[in-house]
Amino acid sequence: MFENSENTKIENQGKSKLIKNILSAIEKNNKTFVVPPGDDAAIIPFIKNKQIVLASNTLVEDVNFDIIYTPLKHLGYKSITTSISNIYAMNATPEYILVNIAFSNKYTMEAIEELYSGINLACNKYKILLAGGDTNTAPKGLTISVSVVGSVNLKNYVLRSTCQKGDLLCVSGDLGGAYMGFHLLEREKRIFMENKNFKPDIEAYNYIIERQLKPEARKDIIELFDSKSIKPTSMTDLSNGLADGMRKIAEQSKVGFDIYENKLPIDNQTLQLASEMNLDATMCILSGGEDYELLFTISQNDYEKIKSNIDITVIGYATAETGICSLITPNGTKTEIKTIN
Amino acid sequence: MFENSENTKIENQGKSKLIKNILSAIEKNNKTFVVPPGDDAAIIPFIKNKQIVLASNTLVEDVNFDIIYTPLKHLGYKSITTSISNIYAMNATPEYILVNIAFSNKYTMEAIEELYSGINLACNKYKILLAGGDTNTAPKGLTISVSVVGSVNLKNYVLRSTCQKGDLLCVSGDLGGAYMGFHLLEREKRIFMENKNFKPDIEAYNYIIERQLKPEARKDIIELFDSKSIKPTSMTDLSNGLADGMRKIAEQSKVGFDIYENKLPIDNQTLQLASEMNLDATMCILSGGEDYELLFTISQNDYEKIKSNIDITVIGYATAETGICSLITPNGTKTEIKTIN
Repeated sequence: MFENSENTKIENQGKSKLIKNILSAIEKNNKTFVVPPGDDAAIIPFIKNKQIVLASNTLVEDVNFDIIYTPLKHLGYKSITTSISNIYAMNATPEYILVNIAFSNKYTMEAIEELYSGINLACNKYKILLAGGDTNTAPKGLTISVSVVGSVNLKNYVLRSTCQKGDLLCVSGDLGGAYMGFHLLEREKRIFMENKNFKPDIEAYNYIIERQLKPEARKDIIELFDSKSIKPTSMTDLSNGLADGMRKIAEQSKVGFDIYENKLPIDNQTLQLASEMNLDATMCILSGGEDYELLFTISQNDYEKIKSNIDITVIGYATAETGICSLITPNGTKTEIKTIN
Repeated sequence: MFENSENTKIENQGKSKLIKNILSAIEKNNKTFVVPPGDDAAIIPFIKNKQIVLASNTLVEDVNFDIIYTPLKHLGYKSITTSISNIYAMNATPEYILVNIAFSNKYTMEAIEELYSGINLACNKYKILLAGGDTNTAPKGLTISVSVVGSVNLKNYVLRSTCQKGDLLCVSGDLGGAYMGFHLLEREKRIFMENKNFKPDIEAYNYIIERQLKPEARKDIIELFDSKSIKPTSMTDLSNGLADGMRKIAEQSKVGFDIYENKLPIDNQTLQLASEMNLDATMCILSGGEDYELLFTISQNDYEKIKSNIDITVIGYATAETGICSLITPNGTKTEIKTIN
């Protein structure tokens, strides 16, 4: 990051060679294709008695990422994890992906292969297969559009709309980190743009930078639900902040939520940088996006099953106040959380 | 086309209202969802004993289309037909689509709704359902990325790689029209850019303009195969010209092709405009893309089943000369057709 280098232009090798390189670089895992990518379409076998789950997600340069501080390998990885996160949010399993990219001629062959090395890494880690896609030129920038095909048993999928009053509101991991990572990278970029010899010293904030640049999807939480026989009563993933996630479940389930400020999970690096930048940590959690944690509700009867898990925090509960989400501060003050939808 | 108008900026109404408008505008046909779009992912039921076919396609402004002469409704329609064409090319049936769009602020609310009205029209005509997607802002231009989920019986799908020596090479419809339509629109655009009061008179070329702006996918040909119990021995769709399509089948099937110049199907408008523009009509057919016709081979035993069909033309046959495609002129001269892959 913060570097430029001279490399091979795509024109020199041609698009079909690029596609061949990409396909051969994608390691096959133990799932098989009926017809692998390379024909007009791929054909995948499907598992009996499973329903098909579909979602997609697009990342656009200078809207969703800044190439100045985003390593392409991380970007490839993130394009996959942020897409499959939607599938986990249904309590389902991602199986295959289609990746469409459009890129300008500022991207070299090596750059696109680097992007695909991150895609490959995520595919291997999450045990999903690249089933095809499209590479295209663009007059400007880079756009990555990922569609995911997943599977789920009819009795297992979890919606946003099925939370009941009294259910416990839980969140995985910690919140606000990706948002503070973004602010840190933007600050360092501004300094770098003024002085190109500047070498940012951001070691102390490695965790939140990784939260921003290379987020994971919470496959482990879905596996935990399975192993503990928990079926959340509702669920979504946090791409636009906690307030937005709560609003989605509250509106679609026709409930409200009361959450406790002192229960909100936050990492020390997030807290420290927020303080350094004079930002309110709670605001970062409520409004800061891109954590890709799971926000879900469980029946009170399931509390015993999760209470000792350090990676899940109960932050509040569902109320009968349809669509109203409130924050309760340590001193007991209750304030409604407003969001713009 | 060739017009500007003042309309509503997206910012005025917000993205989620746009998505609601889009979803409600998409008419539901008789297929159902397990979970319709509107949650983190859509869930679709799947048909027993069918395999799943996946393909995707991206259209980028100023690479794949020019907004000066492309009505957005047509563009939406084309984004679907060009994507599902890949599924038909497997002898399969498209069922669901995911549409991801990224657009700059030059596009108004009305413009994006116009785009979706074309998407809706194609979905209704081809009996496919919009299962979700993503709308995103972009610093510049418009990118439309469509992923298609189709279905096929194991015994029915057709590959590029299974043609045998002696099989007959056939093509649906006529060729070169979309390419000549493109040249006509580009010519009229140049005149329009010099004189904004210019009203192009292109009535005489309506057919080839429609071939360029609003191509159809050959669902009817797949239905014909079914009704006549024909299983092509190989197939692809023509997105980059006849030469490219032949090369794909020839290389993957390890055969060659001899085709006859005087058998190539061409419409009168294509022929007339090629002559007017001093272009060689055969070159337009071989190299001109975007016809989205089906190129396929059949066993000689199936010839009787298609010979009276005016929409299918036998243009040649497969030879043992692996990877070599040749054109035979009316006077008997045989020339190898070279393509850049």
